[in-house]
Amino acid sequence: MNVVDVAVPGARYPIRIAPGRLDHLDEAIPDNATAIGLITNPTVAALYAERAERALARTGRKVVRIELPDGEAHKDWQTLNQIFDALLSNGFDRRSVLVALGGGVIGDMTGFAAAVYMRGIRFVQVPTTLLAQVDSSVGGKTGVNHPLGKNMIGAFHQPVAVEIDTDVLATLPPREVSAGLAEVIKYGMILDHEFWAWCEAHATSLRALDRDALGHAIRVSCELKARVVAEDERESGLRAILNLGHTFGHAIESGLGYGEWLHGEAVGCGMVQAAELSCEVAGLPAADVARVRKLVAAIGCPVTAPDLGAERWLALMRVDKKAEGGEIRFVLTPRIGQAVTRGAPEDAVRRVLARTVG
Amino acid sequence: MNVVDVAVPGARYPIRIAPGRLDHLDEAIPDNATAIGLITNPTVAALYAERAERALARTGRKVVRIELPDGEAHKDWQTLNQIFDALLSNGFDRRSVLVALGGGVIGDMTGFAAAVYMRGIRFVQVPTTLLAQVDSSVGGKTGVNHPLGKNMIGAFHQPVAVEIDTDVLATLPPREVSAGLAEVIKYGMILDHEFWAWCEAHATSLRALDRDALGHAIRVSCELKARVVAEDERESGLRAILNLGHTFGHAIESGLGYGEWLHGEAVGCGMVQAAELSCEVAGLPAADVARVRKLVAAIGCPVTAPDLGAERWLALMRVDKKAEGGEIRFVLTPRIGQAVTRGAPEDAVRRVLARTVG
Repeated sequence: MNVVDVAVPGARYPIRIAPGRLDHLDEAIPDNATAIGLITNPTVAALYAERAERALARTGRKVVRIELPDGEAHKDWQTLNQIFDALLSNGFDRRSVLVALGGGVIGDMTGFAAAVYMRGIRFVQVPTTLLAQVDSSVGGKTGVNHPLGKNMIGAFHQPVAVEIDTDVLATLPPREVSAGLAEVIKYGMILDHEFWAWCEAHATSLRALDRDALGHAIRVSCELKARVVAEDERESGLRAILNLGHTFGHAIESGLGYGEWLHGEAVGCGMVQAAELSCEVAGLPAADVARVRKLVAAIGCPVTAPDLGAERWLALMRVDKKAEGGEIRFVLTPRIGQAVTRGAPEDAVRRVLARTVG
Repeated sequence: MNVVDVAVPGARYPIRIAPGRLDHLDEAIPDNATAIGLITNPTVAALYAERAERALARTGRKVVRIELPDGEAHKDWQTLNQIFDALLSNGFDRRSVLVALGGGVIGDMTGFAAAVYMRGIRFVQVPTTLLAQVDSSVGGKTGVNHPLGKNMIGAFHQPVAVEIDTDVLATLPPREVSAGLAEVIKYGMILDHEFWAWCEAHATSLRALDRDALGHAIRVSCELKARVVAEDERESGLRAILNLGHTFGHAIESGLGYGEWLHGEAVGCGMVQAAELSCEVAGLPAADVARVRKLVAAIGCPVTAPDLGAERWLALMRVDKKAEGGEIRFVLTPRIGQAVTRGAPEDAVRRVLARTVG
């Protein structure tokens, strides 16, 4: 088993990574827990809820399953309220514990419910998508969407443990594997040239869900994210580099309508665009842009951006919440393994759009 | 001007107490604030919003007034969402600041909105009721009600400043002054025998809103609360003693229907009942029970509890969230100025009800 420690001011918790962790979830429940709420969706529940419940039942605590409707469209206050209703009507107190069994939407909503139920209870992340395993389940960002913006209502609330069962990825659709791999290679691009090169060498085994390759990729991704979060839990500085590819990516998601492209696919394509922009204004060699394009394609993500029209592209990037004070800010990479956050001149952005939109 | 410092892990802020603070609210706004949301209700707005806005306008920042419907009945998610709608449609970012101008309901909702808007922004408390000035505006408890329970959804989120204008109490209905004074004398009862005796000597001037007496009472109350919160922000131990009178008081509020008695009135009467129980099981001399009854009456709060029937009384106290593990827990005072949290045998509670219910 691989264990990665996460430490932020006031909290410390383990990420445990191994095949079959689902059968050991009882190990994540604190001794003084009074009751357990297992929060999941019908798709994941059909595959894994009974196994999770069997493991949790070994704690001797009452386990209440709460199934939420599936998908980003339901990541809102109404759905969150279903959790509160269930907790209150089952008498959950301040020492109860929630378990998030699912992808990023389930993790974000469960974490936020835990952050605000009775002013904060504990929760465990059990991410079942690759994207959630390497990204959203680590670092304590939780929240729901508002009709006027995604993730606008939320909190920083760290889990007491993250339990990653690498076997559950076997049931993941291939597109979701590719989308998750986009976040994996992102860590190499912003922080670790050696890991980037390892991903280049193992792209095929990663897509084929090779157990050893995946275990290594997830562990290194979690280590790199944990390092960033430890330095900057509240995203006042360094943590922003985790948004590489996201300014372009959010424009794609929002421009096409959320759900058309998977978030990771948009980030993958956005990384190609950010590499082009880094070549324009931050000194990334053209050969390295080619390496980015090749690896993004190799993990199965699109490398050609949708044609939204240049003006619409710029408008969408400006409303992204990272646009503060008028100038559009980007995460750029002067070289592979190194990232900076800075504004870029509009004409350079236009040249990049002209080159990357299909 | 009196200044009380509050320090909790990760946050430190001043409580400034003086007549006319309303005209200096600009001093509470951090330099890097991008915009200001002034959150209030129609009753308070009619009296004080323009003065507050004039002071805030001196910062040169955009000030958006957000008026919420008045009263505890509206302390819910729908009303909270009015804040989010206004902030998002006015382009409020992570560096914007909210100002809560009103009583406990406005303070709790503004604080919670600030806790979860874009995962947390800053806010200033400007409490306009005595109860809010000495209790709810200090300590960072924020939240809204859920149909199945009061304050069930919330967060610990400390303000960046608390601005207490003692002059605004002149427009407060006398019943609300009495209700606020119940929380004032509570601090003496649990923590400070000398302050209790001072309150006995000044009960008349306090009810008459004597400026010096009020200023002293508010400063000492804030100091005592700040000391408790500094030791136990998250209410894992000591902070529970602030709930003196609240187990009985919540039963009164809930049994009669919220709003029938003011919260402070119920707490005042609950303090008499808690004193009787302390006499039964914790050694408080009978003469001190008489002092409690006399001072609660002197500040204008009821000392005879409503007749809900003993079984209903016990049932209501058991559902109070302080009832963990079956036994009803109370804050008891072995002597004036000293408090403990402990369970009490049911027969003793029944004897107290027989003596205190009218």
